[in-house]
Amino acid sequence: MKARVHVTLKNGVLDPQGKAIGHSLNRLGFPEVGDVRQGKFIELELDETDKAKAKARLDEMCRKLLANTVIENYSIELVG
Amino acid sequence: MKARVHVTLKNGVLDPQGKAIGHSLNRLGFPEVGDVRQGKFIELELDETDKAKAKARLDEMCRKLLANTVIENYSIELVG
Repeated sequence: MKARVHVTLKNGVLDPQGKAIGHSLNRLGFPEVGDVRQGKFIELELDETDKAKAKARLDEMCRKLLANTVIENYSIELVG
Repeated sequence: MKARVHVTLKNGVLDPQGKAIGHSLNRLGFPEVGDVRQGKFIELELDETDKAKAKARLDEMCRKLLANTVIENYSIELVG
């Protein structure tokens, strides 16, 4: 089973990388770009067939390693 | 209008960051984790109402700044 995890900064947490991208786009001739936020996107191959169990395990992975839950949110999506 | 851009390494391009995440998860007690790939996830606020135009502009942004098209793929998604 394949899984996709998105890790994004929580609202209110400063995102200098996103700001840098936004400013660069503005300077490159894209004045329509406003707020930009950058996050992480992780694709995992899982040796697990039970969807509920996979989701619970992924949740544990996010809390233990993939996301810093003090400043980041995460979302889990199972594919196929 | 809000847009989401995913930037991922092309197949065949070595992903040391993904490998490191995979090995760490294996060691942390998640032996079911196989291949892991890490990509970027960018959320942009656009001052543009025309969907087709927004998509064309985003495509240009990806080619000019957000993605390195030699080694990376990108996908664009418009939200609301």
